[in-house]
Amino acid sequence: MRTLKVALLGCGVVGSDVARYLAAHEADLTARIGARVELAGVAVRRADLPRPGIPSHLVTTDADALVTRGDIDVAIEVIGGVDRPYDLITKVFAHGASVVSANKALIATEGAALHAAARDSGVDLFYEAAVAGAVPLLRPLRESLAGDRVTRVLGIVNGTTNFILDRMDTAGWEYPRALKEAMALGYAEADPTADVEGHDAAAKAAILAGLAFNTRVRLDQVHREGITDITAADMAAARSVGRVVKLLAVCDRAPDGDITVRVHPAMLPAGHPLASVRDAFNAVFVEADASGQLMFYGPGAGGAPTAASVLGDLVAACRNRLAGVTGSGDSAYERRRVRPIGDVVTRYHITLDVTDRPGVVGAVVAVLERHGVSVEDFRQTRADGGARLFLSTQRATDRALSAAVAELRDLTQVRDVPRTIRAEAL
Amino acid sequence: MRTLKVALLGCGVVGSDVARYLAAHEADLTARIGARVELAGVAVRRADLPRPGIPSHLVTTDADALVTRGDIDVAIEVIGGVDRPYDLITKVFAHGASVVSANKALIATEGAALHAAARDSGVDLFYEAAVAGAVPLLRPLRESLAGDRVTRVLGIVNGTTNFILDRMDTAGWEYPRALKEAMALGYAEADPTADVEGHDAAAKAAILAGLAFNTRVRLDQVHREGITDITAADMAAARSVGRVVKLLAVCDRAPDGDITVRVHPAMLPAGHPLASVRDAFNAVFVEADASGQLMFYGPGAGGAPTAASVLGDLVAACRNRLAGVTGSGDSAYERRRVRPIGDVVTRYHITLDVTDRPGVVGAVVAVLERHGVSVEDFRQTRADGGARLFLSTQRATDRALSAAVAELRDLTQVRDVPRTIRAEAL
Repeated sequence: MRTLKVALLGCGVVGSDVARYLAAHEADLTARIGARVELAGVAVRRADLPRPGIPSHLVTTDADALVTRGDIDVAIEVIGGVDRPYDLITKVFAHGASVVSANKALIATEGAALHAAARDSGVDLFYEAAVAGAVPLLRPLRESLAGDRVTRVLGIVNGTTNFILDRMDTAGWEYPRALKEAMALGYAEADPTADVEGHDAAAKAAILAGLAFNTRVRLDQVHREGITDITAADMAAARSVGRVVKLLAVCDRAPDGDITVRVHPAMLPAGHPLASVRDAFNAVFVEADASGQLMFYGPGAGGAPTAASVLGDLVAACRNRLAGVTGSGDSAYERRRVRPIGDVVTRYHITLDVTDRPGVVGAVVAVLERHGVSVEDFRQTRADGGARLFLSTQRATDRALSAAVAELRDLTQVRDVPRTIRAEAL
Repeated sequence: MRTLKVALLGCGVVGSDVARYLAAHEADLTARIGARVELAGVAVRRADLPRPGIPSHLVTTDADALVTRGDIDVAIEVIGGVDRPYDLITKVFAHGASVVSANKALIATEGAALHAAARDSGVDLFYEAAVAGAVPLLRPLRESLAGDRVTRVLGIVNGTTNFILDRMDTAGWEYPRALKEAMALGYAEADPTADVEGHDAAAKAAILAGLAFNTRVRLDQVHREGITDITAADMAAARSVGRVVKLLAVCDRAPDGDITVRVHPAMLPAGHPLASVRDAFNAVFVEADASGQLMFYGPGAGGAPTAASVLGDLVAACRNRLAGVTGSGDSAYERRRVRPIGDVVTRYHITLDVTDRPGVVGAVVAVLERHGVSVEDFRQTRADGGARLFLSTQRATDRALSAAVAELRDLTQVRDVPRTIRAEAL
């Protein structure tokens, strides 16, 4: 029986779990692949840390030497960052080996170049773990839905922000307290910027939109807003109208073939399947012409779930290597236009603090309608010697809504517009 | 560019949608496969029916001639039944073509023989559409989770019975009325036996357990109970303790490697993701060592969703054919023992009608405990000059529970035991 050699690049939380399951599931992996898999080397930054279960002679700080030694069949990249893994993976391909990566930032920014390099070398580049951790999502999108036409992907793809928003919703906490709890539980990093500002979700949205719509989406084409200014009052206001606020990745295909890709907080109806996704779980809703509505749900991060996803890709890459073939690549055979955020059409909730005088509502509605934004309903509550207005609009472009809100801020009767938030799946 | 020829066997609801999407998605299919796909023939039982969109020269009543003509690359089997499709598919394989089937009864009963025949001929046998319609489930189980170890599959895999139970739960209808509504809406067939007695779900459970645990599960090894004696009162009683009754397919792997496979109505906590699966939707929960809990959700039946699933398999079969390889087969490399239902361990809810005299509860609990069944809680309501007892047990074997219930029926204080139902995911 043949033996395939695997290089593990990076041995942090995910990498050490990959090594652990490679050993623990050895018999199953051998049966499923039809060959033995041997861990041939583990590239780390610091050789002096304890690595339980990993023979010390396999550990090296020279990743370049490991990937260029010539006998590696598949390299697993779980280092993170962009430049260093890009450099290493390019060398892996040049030496004829396949790559499994869990690195969404890398794929979102350098996916096109890496796919081309893999194709040129006749090897595989898989990265199921880069989006939604353990949730099998990229393979179903790429293969199971290959006979269908995806029109929308709506997803909770960042566990950290979902945990924070869930705590704000269910416990009534403000953002700083929820963030602190997320850090204490290990859901948020010391510098939470990538998560809470939506950078992580934007990278995943770019990957998802590219696969779903068979095109190339650059990270700078993804409109991105974070959750740092969402308040407990926003959550309560949403709850009072039967809605929940989630950080969503929204990828849409218009009938003309153009697409929109955006990441921002949005209201969902409380009965929507995504609304009940709790804690740090991820879930992705997919709408397709023939299949209808599908949902995929599971742990979005964590060492073991991510490692499971990496090993699934490893089995596929090894099987392909034995058969002398490669799997489905990125299949970006379309050149779709990504519409700017101003052209995106959706519904909105607007919260306004206004003076408590007759005619205020009429003036507000008149401004919105002049910009082509129809009001669907509104609710008024007295507050602080003034009033607070909650408005729901019908579908309008982001451009029209932004222009209307700018003009609303200039109305003498309007003290503030503390919140404008999109409403999806209504 | 090469052209691959497809034979469509059967042109009912699913078959006609397959033909429609083959035409409508032609450009996408060509791009994704890397070859053109040509519908080479459509085998039907009656040639005189109108077939909109299908050129009449492609229609034939001679399926055998179609599959043996020698130039077919992939045959799509959407006939249904067992003997006739088995016969045809064997001929397809003998002529070197691959098969995509949506036929769960066929795969559950003849899967082993058909997989062996496909392997001998070096072709593919795919059947994603056989379980949970459009929901990508078999490919994720077989490929994405190939590096993990599945311990449990818990699924709502029959849309008809989920529709009926959902109506009984939400509208308070009795079973006959809900069944009638399901028929009127096309969710149930004129003879609903296969659905309501659990035969359809049992076939899917056999397929799921086989894939999840890499073994062979025969249909007669699946314990099966239907929903025909579930009442609106059962649903209300479940609701009153925060539970919902669903028809579940439950596939478990014990630590010793033995498995259990069963289909029966069961109570789930109302907060469980499967509890909120409405109408005729399907959803499958998968638990695995490393991945944790995953869920897959979507339409479980219908022409278009099933056709989408068939076409996903068609793309895979065509890509493999071009590459000269075959995909993952059934991978039943384990020989696992399927435990009889008597050995299955779970919790139960028991409803008893008893005389309203002191000491009844003590007598009932004594019988259960003598059989090793511990009572977790009970609730008593007065009714008809007697009392009704609702008992929840701790985990016990089916054998112990059945023996205890038989003895309870013989107690003079017990008038009837109208319901014993399992409780899962507690």
